[in-house]
Amino acid sequence: MELQINQRIQKYHPAVWRALTDLGKRIYLPKGIPLQARQASQCDINATIGQCTDDEGQPMPLPVMADKFKNVDPKDIFLYTPQGGRRDLREAWREHIYQDSSEETVEISLPVVSAGLTHGLSLAGELFVDEQTRVLLPQPRWDNYDLIFGVRGQGHIVDYNVMTDPDTTTKNPCRNVSFNSSGIIETLKEQSQHTRKLFLALNFPSNPVGYTPTQSEIDILVHGVQEIVADWKRRGTKHSLIILLDEAYHGMEWDSNSITSSLFFQLQHIDREYVVVCKVDGATKEMFFFGGRIGFISFATSKETQAAMEEKVIGLMRSTISALSSPSQIVLLKALQSPELYSQQEELRHVLQDRYEVLRETLQKSSLDYWPFNSAFFCLVHCPTDPQKKRLQLIEQGLGVVSIPRTPALRISYSTVPKEKIPNMVDILQRNLL
Amino acid sequence: MELQINQRIQKYHPAVWRALTDLGKRIYLPKGIPLQARQASQCDINATIGQCTDDEGQPMPLPVMADKFKNVDPKDIFLYTPQGGRRDLREAWREHIYQDSSEETVEISLPVVSAGLTHGLSLAGELFVDEQTRVLLPQPRWDNYDLIFGVRGQGHIVDYNVMTDPDTTTKNPCRNVSFNSSGIIETLKEQSQHTRKLFLALNFPSNPVGYTPTQSEIDILVHGVQEIVADWKRRGTKHSLIILLDEAYHGMEWDSNSITSSLFFQLQHIDREYVVVCKVDGATKEMFFFGGRIGFISFATSKETQAAMEEKVIGLMRSTISALSSPSQIVLLKALQSPELYSQQEELRHVLQDRYEVLRETLQKSSLDYWPFNSAFFCLVHCPTDPQKKRLQLIEQGLGVVSIPRTPALRISYSTVPKEKIPNMVDILQRNLL
Repeated sequence: MELQINQRIQKYHPAVWRALTDLGKRIYLPKGIPLQARQASQCDINATIGQCTDDEGQPMPLPVMADKFKNVDPKDIFLYTPQGGRRDLREAWREHIYQDSSEETVEISLPVVSAGLTHGLSLAGELFVDEQTRVLLPQPRWDNYDLIFGVRGQGHIVDYNVMTDPDTTTKNPCRNVSFNSSGIIETLKEQSQHTRKLFLALNFPSNPVGYTPTQSEIDILVHGVQEIVADWKRRGTKHSLIILLDEAYHGMEWDSNSITSSLFFQLQHIDREYVVVCKVDGATKEMFFFGGRIGFISFATSKETQAAMEEKVIGLMRSTISALSSPSQIVLLKALQSPELYSQQEELRHVLQDRYEVLRETLQKSSLDYWPFNSAFFCLVHCPTDPQKKRLQLIEQGLGVVSIPRTPALRISYSTVPKEKIPNMVDILQRNLL
Repeated sequence: MELQINQRIQKYHPAVWRALTDLGKRIYLPKGIPLQARQASQCDINATIGQCTDDEGQPMPLPVMADKFKNVDPKDIFLYTPQGGRRDLREAWREHIYQDSSEETVEISLPVVSAGLTHGLSLAGELFVDEQTRVLLPQPRWDNYDLIFGVRGQGHIVDYNVMTDPDTTTKNPCRNVSFNSSGIIETLKEQSQHTRKLFLALNFPSNPVGYTPTQSEIDILVHGVQEIVADWKRRGTKHSLIILLDEAYHGMEWDSNSITSSLFFQLQHIDREYVVVCKVDGATKEMFFFGGRIGFISFATSKETQAAMEEKVIGLMRSTISALSSPSQIVLLKALQSPELYSQQEELRHVLQDRYEVLRETLQKSSLDYWPFNSAFFCLVHCPTDPQKKRLQLIEQGLGVVSIPRTPALRISYSTVPKEKIPNMVDILQRNLL
């Protein structure tokens, strides 16, 4: 059953085929009850599917549940949605992605809905990460990456530094670090000598650094990847490189110097004999819908392979969570269909932008050493002495932050801190860190 | 980090330890950002977590999303909920489970919220099913079992017949079959000679058969399992038996002869040196919340191991979907807290019970051969000639059903068929099957 989609992938996107895990190779979407239900959807009597409808074919929810919703058809809340998510939502999200690009042709699969961003990352892991994979992860990084790709996926984890090393001869060693484009390329080059299967996770805007590169920094990165791939091609090697774009914080760029459109558009055309580009994004942060758990996963791939990749992902989901939450999907769909969406989003982003600016200015005037930040919800404050202990000490003084011991730093999420409280927050940090 | 919970499991529930997959053994829940956020929850300035709140600490949803809800605090919709699901919801569901039992002490772990029933089954599979596992599945069965435990889990699938063989010398061979208690026990005995690790999936009320056993049929089953385990113990073997209870259709019993309370209570005390009992249930069918995707997974295990089992499951979730949908959780919680819930549920069940009774009477009077059914949403009509072809033929005549070629039968979901249309439906079936 999986044969047909595997043949397509082998033929039209060889890098995917070489990169798939055993599970990735064998997964498919059985033509079972969901398909039979779809075929019978026009029948006068549709006795295919195990859900309940009343004599008019309407859902029959418990009234104590139905009274929690308004301006939505109960069908869109209480009944199942198709495997892989509502088609209209998937199409609306693709349109949303397109808005980012001036290119005429974007070869992107129809985004499959995932149960949040983590789920999109985990699906990419299930498809591509196994014991034979070198997984290049940013340092510092969101700690769940290790659980997903290491503990679960059993990939061989390799760190790359997101930023250049602090110059410890200067007064504030971290303030002047910069994006580590050439370091990332060096790591990639070096690792490609040890293994043929590389998985590079790129996270812009980044968590926990809160940094998004400028176009010239990105140019070095993209050019470097192209050169590595060209070298593989010249030598006729069997390498494969999966580039995972974790774009959870897309749209949360506060500085005009950093790129604001998805890196996807700059990477999508890289040689498909060697490269797979996978984009994970979603509504959690971008649409301020943290509780909704709606993400998307899509691939840069040719028309011939798009459906096959979608089926692989949907097969993985059918065998884990099956359908997705209907209420979350319809609420996001209605938002994407609303002419007011982008102005409302802009308004909320202004609140964050204001906090960002106050924080940046206050930090500049302070004696604290901190890493450059220009996006997402975070900044890192240098914390040379036992960040874990400092964190607990700060809680005693009414300030909650996250410790990043390896960096060593404290992560400040200014997305939850009122503008007025920011000077006081920096003050508490100064008193405790210096 | 996983060491401590593993030691607890080894000591207090040895069967679990022997039965865990490699992933099940190594998974744990890192004490990462969620824990740090919890510790800082009382801080005046809480800058731990990457979600957005306004200057009053309230969520800041897009108005186009917020206007879809009423009678619910936006906090419960737009912000994250804890890993493993809301604590109040987990406790409310445990109370709901308790209502089924007259026993004073029920040793059940606090149910962990899953993203629907399938997810609960899949989590059980991730914990316990690998290439060394014989997975005993009902025949006929919901086809997704094969994808979850076979294609994904790589278990060695073994069929057991849910019902006894039809007596083909009689006029309607299927009408008089009965529940196959002793056949299931025979299969279990036989398989335990080939392998030490057995995974038995029991699905009552069953999909697609629509049958729930009587207490005397269950007695044979439970007694049979006890004898097998006693024999292992006598011989000091290293067997482990995971009993998975898929109780998706709990509460949907239409006949007073079948058991109505969970089999969990009758199995929970079986020797934990050898047996693990895992219960999967949820709101999808039971609370008519198909679109909500809320299930639960719990284990019969001692006080000492409950938290460890919960952490294993939550670790698996943290590395796949992370948090769960907030809107679905709050809507279910509000329902469970409402004094009107059970009367409203009863009212909806009456609609199904009515359909069941009309269908049963109409079938009895017909010439169709069908399998005994007394619960859930389904019945199976015998279809000796190419069920797949018959299914397409029926669609032409305005009737959608599901084909079950191996049985061979057609599955009729009367949960979506108005009572008035049932005689016509049976008529169409008669004209096409006889």
